[in-house]
Amino acid sequence: MRDGTKGVCAPKGFVAGGIRCGIKKSSAKNDLALVKCEVPCRAAAVYTRNKVYGAPITVTRKNLENGTAQAIVCNSGNANTCNADGVMIAEKMCVLAGEALGIDPSDVIIGSTGVIGQPLPLEPIEWGIRSLAPKLTRDGAHEAQLAIMTTDIRPKETAVTFDLDGVTVTIGAMAKGSGMIRPNMATMLSFITTDCAISAPMLEKALKLTVDDTYNMVSVDGDTSTNDMVSVMASGLAGNAPIETEGPAFDAFVSGLTAVATRISRMIAADGEGATKLIEVAVTGAPDRQAARTVAKSVVMSSLVKAAMFGADANWGRILCAIGYADAEFDASQIEVLLSSPAGRIRVCLHGSGVPFSEEEAKKILLETEIRVEINMHQGTAFATAWGCDLTYDYVKINGDYRT
Amino acid sequence: MRDGTKGVCAPKGFVAGGIRCGIKKSSAKNDLALVKCEVPCRAAAVYTRNKVYGAPITVTRKNLENGTAQAIVCNSGNANTCNADGVMIAEKMCVLAGEALGIDPSDVIIGSTGVIGQPLPLEPIEWGIRSLAPKLTRDGAHEAQLAIMTTDIRPKETAVTFDLDGVTVTIGAMAKGSGMIRPNMATMLSFITTDCAISAPMLEKALKLTVDDTYNMVSVDGDTSTNDMVSVMASGLAGNAPIETEGPAFDAFVSGLTAVATRISRMIAADGEGATKLIEVAVTGAPDRQAARTVAKSVVMSSLVKAAMFGADANWGRILCAIGYADAEFDASQIEVLLSSPAGRIRVCLHGSGVPFSEEEAKKILLETEIRVEINMHQGTAFATAWGCDLTYDYVKINGDYRT
Repeated sequence: MRDGTKGVCAPKGFVAGGIRCGIKKSSAKNDLALVKCEVPCRAAAVYTRNKVYGAPITVTRKNLENGTAQAIVCNSGNANTCNADGVMIAEKMCVLAGEALGIDPSDVIIGSTGVIGQPLPLEPIEWGIRSLAPKLTRDGAHEAQLAIMTTDIRPKETAVTFDLDGVTVTIGAMAKGSGMIRPNMATMLSFITTDCAISAPMLEKALKLTVDDTYNMVSVDGDTSTNDMVSVMASGLAGNAPIETEGPAFDAFVSGLTAVATRISRMIAADGEGATKLIEVAVTGAPDRQAARTVAKSVVMSSLVKAAMFGADANWGRILCAIGYADAEFDASQIEVLLSSPAGRIRVCLHGSGVPFSEEEAKKILLETEIRVEINMHQGTAFATAWGCDLTYDYVKINGDYRT
Repeated sequence: MRDGTKGVCAPKGFVAGGIRCGIKKSSAKNDLALVKCEVPCRAAAVYTRNKVYGAPITVTRKNLENGTAQAIVCNSGNANTCNADGVMIAEKMCVLAGEALGIDPSDVIIGSTGVIGQPLPLEPIEWGIRSLAPKLTRDGAHEAQLAIMTTDIRPKETAVTFDLDGVTVTIGAMAKGSGMIRPNMATMLSFITTDCAISAPMLEKALKLTVDDTYNMVSVDGDTSTNDMVSVMASGLAGNAPIETEGPAFDAFVSGLTAVATRISRMIAADGEGATKLIEVAVTGAPDRQAARTVAKSVVMSSLVKAAMFGADANWGRILCAIGYADAEFDASQIEVLLSSPAGRIRVCLHGSGVPFSEEEAKKILLETEIRVEINMHQGTAFATAWGCDLTYDYVKINGDYRT
């Protein structure tokens, strides 16, 4: 598997672009993205489990019922959620995109991210779609990425290539992360593209297999957003023998998809609102997979663990506490905990009790920007990894007054 | 029902005191509390559901098996949790308290709060118990309260009196709150005393009826501690006809207990680590009681709602979002939300969608120190209230470097 950098335009057939149309009033940033494929794609998506969900979720779900899509339209600055006319506006956006791109409006994947509950004006979007549509290029992935950011500081895009029976297949992705990020179904906006030839049912199956160990293992603040979605479009232009059943080719595709999704997940965690550190919680020796996931997420979501990491304080008792209230069955008296980073690795807890360690060494380890909490439960062979970030003054600052 | 102010010493028969014995090294604050009743009491307690729990929980659970207790010993500065010798130390503390107070060591309720995973030295506690035991008085409740505080800023004690068939019955309480506070079983350290004559089984029943709508509806940071416990001791010295079955007298006692527990719960929420505001979330019109509780707790626990409250930002979309991811079955399209405080009351959402409101008026309402979020689900008659606080810079500061 090799790295690529052209994001959603890395696979064959995709063009993209971004523009500032004026939804974000006070900002000079892009706020509207378009991605188009030269051919209709097999497509699938997973959606937020929040019972309050945005109009774009309603419309995308309907548009993907037939497993086909050819374009993405996504705005930032307004979530188009909890608005009485939201679905009508979202459908209008698909019609506008369809007209401007010369495709069927029902083949459009639509996303919106930003403030909830403020009417989304159609005029700037109409102007934006019409201006942007003729300008989409093979180099436009980054401009599209910039247009879907809200409080994100760093863009999140990646791509991998791998061989499938002598044919080179590429998977690319971009994402919007930062706030309202919590592990439970698709937990952010992420658009994946690939040139792999694969049937719609197998594409959906691959996506579902991937999200539980990647996107769903990320937490920034424990809040599951109303608009989260991960979509994937497959153009088939790589020319591989179409994947229509499980087998080695399907497994290779899932591996590639997992690699892309893991990278995006780490990027989202590291760029959490106000974050100064990426926290990776790796659970091993768990009685079963679900327990491993639940324990890893419980630790990565703990406000007290997150604040201790910000302060580079090896307060491992908080880690044990968060393990203990995880909703899973296990024996807490077997647990071992280690802290590691590029600066070193120390054991802080064995058999559920503290062990002596050097506070100085611990401090050195925790002052790094990527911290790994290793939890060996010593009661099985299951494992899982979760990603999050520290809780900082800036998180409070960003969210104390987001709208103004 | 009338107010009282002598905390755990308000009911007949109880004496108390607090002392600085030296567990908190750098502080001049009390760190050891004793409470004693002149007669053996009926007693009951509810405990943390955390699978990692402190040695004091193990020992208190065993001591209360026979439904009898006569004293409380509680230290702050060290949680005596995740220590290999923890249970032995906790049992020793009961023996020391029993000797010094002239009671059976198995009639001691023991609590510890503070850092997890550091060995608890017995010497200062031994000295403290022996010095303090002869000095307990009817006026010592406040000194005892001060001794169980950790990062608490304000003491939490209250008492109520009410009539039971012409006899005056009193219930008093003190609590330790502040951090690692989350709704799920007894979520903090709270000691309740009463002079009511009531059997041990009815006392336990009354306590369990009370906690689900009071202590379990409080959240500061979503972390369920390892040491949380609410205990109640009943001396019977009020002289009422002993309560041995359900009926009007039992109901009156539960009302009194609920009043005390509600006040303590509000105090704990308002004094959450770093808090500048008490947030009360009142859900009505819910399809059932459990849904009402789940929705209220989901909103009060949302980091994004808490940060918005700190910033006095009427970002009600975050409230809808937190309602939506609550783990309960309901129709999100019926929901109405109002914000209120002593400065006013405004509707921000109706039928699940935004309604126009004055941002200026909303700001005025949210700048108060007690905010009420009123959620009418319009799909039933069940209701519940949860209490929490805002998320502030000081929460991060306090928890970024708690141990040093």
